[in-house]
Amino acid sequence: MKRASFGHMECGIARAVDAVGDAWTLLLLREAFLGATTFAEFQSRLPVAPNTLSRRLVELTRKGLFTRTAYQRRPAREEYVLTEKAMELLPVLLALGAWGNRWLAPRGAFMTFVNPKTKRAIEPRIIDARSKKALRPGAVALTAGPGASRALRRQLREPVVLGTSGNSRRNSP
Amino acid sequence: MKRASFGHMECGIARAVDAVGDAWTLLLLREAFLGATTFAEFQSRLPVAPNTLSRRLVELTRKGLFTRTAYQRRPAREEYVLTEKAMELLPVLLALGAWGNRWLAPRGAFMTFVNPKTKRAIEPRIIDARSKKALRPGAVALTAGPGASRALRRQLREPVVLGTSGNSRRNSP
Repeated sequence: MKRASFGHMECGIARAVDAVGDAWTLLLLREAFLGATTFAEFQSRLPVAPNTLSRRLVELTRKGLFTRTAYQRRPAREEYVLTEKAMELLPVLLALGAWGNRWLAPRGAFMTFVNPKTKRAIEPRIIDARSKKALRPGAVALTAGPGASRALRRQLREPVVLGTSGNSRRNSP
Repeated sequence: MKRASFGHMECGIARAVDAVGDAWTLLLLREAFLGATTFAEFQSRLPVAPNTLSRRLVELTRKGLFTRTAYQRRPAREEYVLTEKAMELLPVLLALGAWGNRWLAPRGAFMTFVNPKTKRAIEPRIIDARSKKALRPGAVALTAGPGASRALRRQLREPVVLGTSGNSRRNSP
């Protein structure tokens, strides 16, 4: 069952969801962030058939998330290394992990984040880099960006605040 | 094609990916964060058939991401309101949006994030809430948490640094 494409939507979230918002992509990225680079490493860590894995690695390479390079001649061996584009998805994985630890691990987190040097616990939090304030629901709005079409500009004349669903209805007549 | 379940994996990232790591879930959440609460609102905003939308809203309600409440008696109308569990996924959407704006909008971002009051631009960044430092690749490691099995504890005796793929191989003999 092929799903609809959202890659044409005028929204960074929708485009990102279209590009990397599926379980296999996110798990392959997770393994790559954890150090997997070769076909054998990905295969040993994930419940995936070889032809499926092969297809997905090629697809993510085509999308610019991996570079494929030969690291050995005889026998020929290739490795898949995360690109800068993929590396910048780390916040997505950290945000997912923090949420999973909090909501889906009733007996306590399986894995926790630590500083590699000090071993002190790390608590991922998303903030505004300018004001340094935490970005909670109600504290962020979407507005038309420089690449917005005229239609989108009209639609977003007033910024839309994220995360106030329900309240608006309850407060309205 | 039903995919394998990753909900049993001992990892907050894998469990979160299993629970919300699909395009439809993420897009329904996006619309809900943007204020959609009724069936009609979701339908008018997304290219989705009524029966599919209905099934997905029920599924997300079952997963604890929406509460379904009647807001009108005649005719009967229900609304889907984000739960606290769902609201805490905002960082995931912001991280996806920031990445999409940066990598998938070659003519400039379609939508940008602003402070709802001041209208000043917001730049989402993920930091460690304790040290306030940005969490870049190489600056975060995974270690066994309180809920880890004995096997996982053994496997993670040394924390695994996130985002050093490739380097390890290049540096090894």
